[in-house]
Amino acid sequence: MTLIDEERLVAPQDDYPTRLRDAEHTMPRRDPVIWSDWSPDAPISRAEADHYDQKGYLIRNDLFTPEEVETLIAASTRIRNNAAGIRPEDLVTEPGTDEVRTLFRLDDHSPVFSRLARDARLADTARFLLGDEVYLHQSRLNYKPGFTGKEFYWHSDFETWHAKDGLPRMRAVSASVLLTDNSALNGPLMLIPGSHRQFIACQGETPDDNHETSLKKQQTGVPSTDMLERLVAEAGLDAATGPAGTVIFFECNTLHASNGNVTPFPRSNAFFVYNAVSNAAQAPFAASKPRPDFLSNRTATEPLAVHHDRVRMD
Amino acid sequence: MTLIDEERLVAPQDDYPTRLRDAEHTMPRRDPVIWSDWSPDAPISRAEADHYDQKGYLIRNDLFTPEEVETLIAASTRIRNNAAGIRPEDLVTEPGTDEVRTLFRLDDHSPVFSRLARDARLADTARFLLGDEVYLHQSRLNYKPGFTGKEFYWHSDFETWHAKDGLPRMRAVSASVLLTDNSALNGPLMLIPGSHRQFIACQGETPDDNHETSLKKQQTGVPSTDMLERLVAEAGLDAATGPAGTVIFFECNTLHASNGNVTPFPRSNAFFVYNAVSNAAQAPFAASKPRPDFLSNRTATEPLAVHHDRVRMD
Repeated sequence: MTLIDEERLVAPQDDYPTRLRDAEHTMPRRDPVIWSDWSPDAPISRAEADHYDQKGYLIRNDLFTPEEVETLIAASTRIRNNAAGIRPEDLVTEPGTDEVRTLFRLDDHSPVFSRLARDARLADTARFLLGDEVYLHQSRLNYKPGFTGKEFYWHSDFETWHAKDGLPRMRAVSASVLLTDNSALNGPLMLIPGSHRQFIACQGETPDDNHETSLKKQQTGVPSTDMLERLVAEAGLDAATGPAGTVIFFECNTLHASNGNVTPFPRSNAFFVYNAVSNAAQAPFAASKPRPDFLSNRTATEPLAVHHDRVRMD
Repeated sequence: MTLIDEERLVAPQDDYPTRLRDAEHTMPRRDPVIWSDWSPDAPISRAEADHYDQKGYLIRNDLFTPEEVETLIAASTRIRNNAAGIRPEDLVTEPGTDEVRTLFRLDDHSPVFSRLARDARLADTARFLLGDEVYLHQSRLNYKPGFTGKEFYWHSDFETWHAKDGLPRMRAVSASVLLTDNSALNGPLMLIPGSHRQFIACQGETPDDNHETSLKKQQTGVPSTDMLERLVAEAGLDAATGPAGTVIFFECNTLHASNGNVTPFPRSNAFFVYNAVSNAAQAPFAASKPRPDFLSNRTATEPLAVHHDRVRMD
């Protein structure tokens, strides 16, 4: 009793301090990458587990049947055509129109995608990787049009989720289910392999650096260009491409980015962040208050019930 | 005599009217793609000529030796390190710094690149493709940094050169000499194969189109998204990638674009626009006055003297 009470009185330990005032620095990862021991009944092969462990991501293009992929695409189209009925706080629309760019809490708005989030092919992989029951920390439908798709700069999701949302450990994994074909030319997810093995504690404030050129300007909460250059020089740069239906699992601390897209080919995906139930959000480690629930689920944190049937339209 | 005098009195015929008030439309190309008959002593093979004729571009990665490529890279680095001495009107620098982004009239500022512009491997290919002596309509060194490289939207160079600079015919070709490796991920030149075979007369003014979403907004002097979608659906999209030293020849009317680039890998190239001497700039066809000389050379239009020796540092 005494011990428990004392634990409640002290602030949770911060194993990954970030948004530092002085300077960026790195520290070794203090968590396993895969929280289960592999065995032949694991949902991924030993080679796939080794790849995820070493590279920080895993691409599967054999999980869904063509009919299932068609069902998912049809469901996403239906959502975008019926945006008017969706609660505005979950929607990001194209300025001046009701064209959907992002729909948050996707599993809340669509029976098909709710089922997909609980599909064994995704959720059991997440349960294996995280060695725990899982819940959705965030889910969303992304729709990036052709011609005007914007870039997304390099970052570790964990750095944000730890700093702003209060996830204590590196014990979360994202699954991006591609709903359009993604080539190297239409702004695919790019990842720095192996970058998940260290934590980059980011400089929190833009320094008063007149000696630096604007090219090299430090952005808040992202690695420096020097750091990125070094990591990519060492490990290279991978692009997660594939046809619609491809699933990209990537570890929460893997550095990733995507280029803008002037091709006519849009990019769309359903995006699920699985967090271990034992890693539920605490108070933010580097923010005064947590982000809203649609970005950082703090309410519906019961373990997902895994579905083993095929994806189908209701 | 009478005929000649009469010709001088009438405005030059405009075979490619563009920047139209009402609507975009297309017309067939009214010029050959290759202005010479191929023969075994041509500077490119028959297969290469056929490729250029059909696709509107040609990629050569066998033209320069590694030592020559090193010489060109060293020369470009020297230019960027000595930007202070260059006349400001030819320089585009990074805002707030003297970091060079673009140096125009490249052949005027560098003996190495002046020689390169006259190198038989470039200039003789241009002379063959254009069936005439050639001069440089424009030349520049492009340096796009990693992390912050911006996209360039779809356009036909000829549409601009005709409308704004007064080039009457489709009788020009660009040669881009890569000075960095270019992959599909760091914003390579993308081309719509076969797009050079028709002229897209662009709508000149942004229409008052409240019915259109901003996603689809018509930009001035560029093809519509509907047009681009149709062309790419028919012919696909090619990316001109290759190691430093690769040369991309592309026909003046081939639609091209490039994505932005958040990778650490910069993109640099030396860019030469060869125009047939018989196609020299007239009064602009859709502008009140021509662009300045560094963009649209109207003074140094004598035929280039072709060099046959290797590229070397002076």
